[in-house]
Amino acid sequence: MNVPAAEKPSGITVLGIDPGLSNTGYAVLQEVNGTVAFREGGIISTPSNRPLEDRLREIYLGLTEVVASFEPDLVAVEDLYSDYQNPASAVLMGHARGVCLLAASSHSVPVASYRPTRVKKSLTGNGRASKQQVKSMVKVVLRLSVEPSSEHVADAIAVALCHLQERRVNAVTGGRG
Amino acid sequence: MNVPAAEKPSGITVLGIDPGLSNTGYAVLQEVNGTVAFREGGIISTPSNRPLEDRLREIYLGLTEVVASFEPDLVAVEDLYSDYQNPASAVLMGHARGVCLLAASSHSVPVASYRPTRVKKSLTGNGRASKQQVKSMVKVVLRLSVEPSSEHVADAIAVALCHLQERRVNAVTGGRG
Repeated sequence: MNVPAAEKPSGITVLGIDPGLSNTGYAVLQEVNGTVAFREGGIISTPSNRPLEDRLREIYLGLTEVVASFEPDLVAVEDLYSDYQNPASAVLMGHARGVCLLAASSHSVPVASYRPTRVKKSLTGNGRASKQQVKSMVKVVLRLSVEPSSEHVADAIAVALCHLQERRVNAVTGGRG
Repeated sequence: MNVPAAEKPSGITVLGIDPGLSNTGYAVLQEVNGTVAFREGGIISTPSNRPLEDRLREIYLGLTEVVASFEPDLVAVEDLYSDYQNPASAVLMGHARGVCLLAASSHSVPVASYRPTRVKKSLTGNGRASKQQVKSMVKVVLRLSVEPSSEHVADAIAVALCHLQERRVNAVTGGRG
């Protein structure tokens, strides 16, 4: 059946990722005709007693599977912070974030990154919102029956929503927003 | 032709890596019957104006090619530091180190990591040796005609030599060294 071009859904699928060595959260959101739907979310957890290189491989393979299944148009992640309270764990997070970005670029999926404060502000109106406020707003915006049980999934949803919001603003302002 | 088992070279091939986002140095060393030979070394450089995810992909693909060509028995890298003068660049280095380790684990090559001071001490006798001292010793130990032009290649050679040295000590002491 031929669907007239105008009736084809002009959808976009965004994969939000919250990188972490112990827990990497991810969420697949799809926006079609202005409505955002939650497609899938989850956590890739790796045990701390395993060698670092094996943990990174698990994260990479897990995300590769998600990318292959949902063929996102874009991967959204939080920017690097500029303020590191705990440099050692930030560097370990860097290892995880590196393989997350690689999972995107290996499949030629572009990456957009947003500052943590911008993600929170975009979702809650407050750049310093608490994790609980992020969870609550995620539930409201996506019309979920319950809040995401994991803050990692909530954070992955939040950064994906931030991208969709920015995209809407840019569509209206022609990128001048 | 059948070679008697005793005459087969009991060789080991080690890939040393000095991870960095701008410059990742690597070196392939092969030890056969107690003699270490330099097989190949090089740098994977990525331009700073390219997206981070593309730079990580270049590093990953470059190392994957080296691993496929030389089939190392082990990858040797320097440990994570515990003292970070510049956390932001340490986190970026973490991204690069993450994809380096992934290049190893994707090919089921085990990884050994050594403290920077141990690498320098093993090579020069001094845990705080200068970069120039490392270069000079690398030339002597591998009987090279010239010093490695790049400190990144010299550092990659140094960590690979450190592993071979530890292995020799362990073979003598039965791991009690």
